[in-house]
Amino acid sequence: MRIIDIIIKKRERMALNQAEFDFVAKGAADGSIADYQLSAFLMACFLNPLSDAEAAMFTKAMAFSGKKLSFPEIKKPKVDKHSTGGVGDGISLALAPLVACADLAVPMMSGRGLGHTGGTLDKLEAMKGFQVRIAPEKIKKQMKALGVCMFGQTSDLAPADKKLYALRDATGTVESRPLIVASILSKKYAEGVDALVMDVKFGSGAFMREYADSKKLAQSLVRTASIMGLKCTALLTNMDQPLGRAAGNANEMLQSIKILKGDKDIAPDFYELLIETGAHMLVMGKKAKTVAAARAKLEKYIASGEALEKLRQMIKWQGGDPKLVDSPETHLKDARKMLEFKADKAGCISRMDARITGEACVLLGAGRSRMEDSIDFGAGMWFARKVGDPVKKGDVIARLYASDAKRLNDGALRFSQAVTIQKGKVAKPCIIREIIK
Amino acid sequence: MRIIDIIIKKRERMALNQAEFDFVAKGAADGSIADYQLSAFLMACFLNPLSDAEAAMFTKAMAFSGKKLSFPEIKKPKVDKHSTGGVGDGISLALAPLVACADLAVPMMSGRGLGHTGGTLDKLEAMKGFQVRIAPEKIKKQMKALGVCMFGQTSDLAPADKKLYALRDATGTVESRPLIVASILSKKYAEGVDALVMDVKFGSGAFMREYADSKKLAQSLVRTASIMGLKCTALLTNMDQPLGRAAGNANEMLQSIKILKGDKDIAPDFYELLIETGAHMLVMGKKAKTVAAARAKLEKYIASGEALEKLRQMIKWQGGDPKLVDSPETHLKDARKMLEFKADKAGCISRMDARITGEACVLLGAGRSRMEDSIDFGAGMWFARKVGDPVKKGDVIARLYASDAKRLNDGALRFSQAVTIQKGKVAKPCIIREIIK
Repeated sequence: MRIIDIIIKKRERMALNQAEFDFVAKGAADGSIADYQLSAFLMACFLNPLSDAEAAMFTKAMAFSGKKLSFPEIKKPKVDKHSTGGVGDGISLALAPLVACADLAVPMMSGRGLGHTGGTLDKLEAMKGFQVRIAPEKIKKQMKALGVCMFGQTSDLAPADKKLYALRDATGTVESRPLIVASILSKKYAEGVDALVMDVKFGSGAFMREYADSKKLAQSLVRTASIMGLKCTALLTNMDQPLGRAAGNANEMLQSIKILKGDKDIAPDFYELLIETGAHMLVMGKKAKTVAAARAKLEKYIASGEALEKLRQMIKWQGGDPKLVDSPETHLKDARKMLEFKADKAGCISRMDARITGEACVLLGAGRSRMEDSIDFGAGMWFARKVGDPVKKGDVIARLYASDAKRLNDGALRFSQAVTIQKGKVAKPCIIREIIK
Repeated sequence: MRIIDIIIKKRERMALNQAEFDFVAKGAADGSIADYQLSAFLMACFLNPLSDAEAAMFTKAMAFSGKKLSFPEIKKPKVDKHSTGGVGDGISLALAPLVACADLAVPMMSGRGLGHTGGTLDKLEAMKGFQVRIAPEKIKKQMKALGVCMFGQTSDLAPADKKLYALRDATGTVESRPLIVASILSKKYAEGVDALVMDVKFGSGAFMREYADSKKLAQSLVRTASIMGLKCTALLTNMDQPLGRAAGNANEMLQSIKILKGDKDIAPDFYELLIETGAHMLVMGKKAKTVAAARAKLEKYIASGEALEKLRQMIKWQGGDPKLVDSPETHLKDARKMLEFKADKAGCISRMDARITGEACVLLGAGRSRMEDSIDFGAGMWFARKVGDPVKKGDVIARLYASDAKRLNDGALRFSQAVTIQKGKVAKPCIIREIIK
């Protein structure tokens, strides 16, 4: 087999087979195919898009390009979720321990934040001592004992995806739906899960802003996963404004702990997304017959304290201080300075642009502009008001946290461009717009 | 300017501007753009083809990526020709000195043979001592004194084309008409010529076999050259059978010398193409008002011996032995063994497939399978009969030359697949099918 023949075949819009995708993925992983050939192949795939069947084959090829995680000794259904990313999008921290209470295994592999979107690994590291780089053997041990582990992508898990993603990023071939689908699913498939909930965002803070585009991505993900024999449900969720009350790593961790402590009114949209996502994981994992029954089960795990206890155990297993869950404010790293962002007129908040809010958080120090930037875990925002809330002039809309006054002012200036207050009533937006199975 | 933005622009079918093509060509030449980005760009150009205007800009950008030859001190019109390649396609050796007789400057840059097609540089080197790697200063000196120089591409002439062609070859992006046009014209433009005759081949031995494809290429070349202010005429010529009587480097040199000595009946198709090509160069170079007048002038240069004398001078200038033109057989390197390929039945030759004949020549040792192969200058063929000629059983169709019996047998076996003899008359094919201005 020769890579040039595979490139020409795709260039000529012919369908590739599993052996050809395996050849490409193996060559990307071990360096036996030159980067310039891989990038020509990727551009051909971009302009002559892969079919669902091809995306499924490419997904498998990338998943098998390294060491696939497998847990043969764990008989429980293995479930996970993936979000396409957003602002304040931190439900994983609460979701993983919550779902593990239902006797499901949750091997949750996460990434870091970049640009205006946050990453779960950074949020976990806002807990002092918490380890996310874990050897596969340790992951297996923890999974067996606790049913849940949250960890970063190891270098030998789907290495072809890592290589190809870096090339796509440098060659203008990121925004291809089948390539996005294959990249997302390859990592999840390599985790060895049986079922997956996809949280596909739309709106200003989403990777794909247009609802129609996000819906097509969600449909492709579900169809491609189905071809691979992976159960998958996709939720199309609103990212026009930040999710929940918190943005920034420590703030989001704090919010998750409060939610698991039963304070669901703190962030109703966050809570709704958490419970609905978890419910679909339970249904696909055969721990509930209906979504309604699954939701009731999850609410019970919160009320009984089981979910909080699972989080405590996970923190202990992964090197953090389990006392954190009892008094989170004192344990999470805190930025030193705070600024109250106030309404400059009376009315109703009609817009809190998620992308601009995310950019404001980066200015505060909560995120990264480049992958090598370091993060101020305490930096971020706490939203006292959200879209649909009435305000009087001078009411606090959000509290901004940063390490110094300059960052606070830069962040506030940017955030001011995100917020619109208008006369009259504005409806609260629905968090989940559609569910695709 | 960033290469990724240029890639994305082309990916999205937007037209690029001169500054963007300059950026790409400069980056290809000096290595400041990564190979994997160049190859993604090339695949985008392949699948979203460049317009004529873009091809012209890309041509200029590649021509200016290194040192452009310029001859400000030469006031004569500068003319050249380019062939898309074939078998027995050696008119350049006769054409360059012939046209130079008409007080035109002919700075003829040529390449080497690869696969079934020959290259002018190899044919020149069949003359002992003849130098084709010449420093720009020496080229200028010879051009001023003699009006003609035949030389190989210097490393600083259109280096972007060299780099991009190598990448295209490895990434399945060769067969794009605008990229082919830009590659061909960039080298000619960098030579600093005013007018150009393109010999675009069609038929079994041509780069593009189909007449319709070759015609489109010829039209693109003429249109693109016109945009650049370069006069260009394209001849569409038949490469279904080898051109002329000779294939192989020494044989083709011998044929050219014989033609310039006035023996035009030796190879009527070769002679016709030589005179017609030269005539268009004279017309574009304003040395004749009509093609007919130009043809008459060229025939006079041959009859008077001026053309042969110009060849003699060129050989002298470039390190060869000028006595070669007086007794070429004794001076050209000769393969040691000869085999007569005879007709196995009576009839008329209806087919002498040029590509298969070229492959037979490679087996004889006359060509290269890979660029690093060495060449046996004496190896090749001399065609006693061509398409349209009647044969009796046992008549010699061709003489094959090689260094040993095994090569002769391999070559003869392959050549036998090229030749068809049929009952009844077969018309002699026309060498020039169409002229595009």
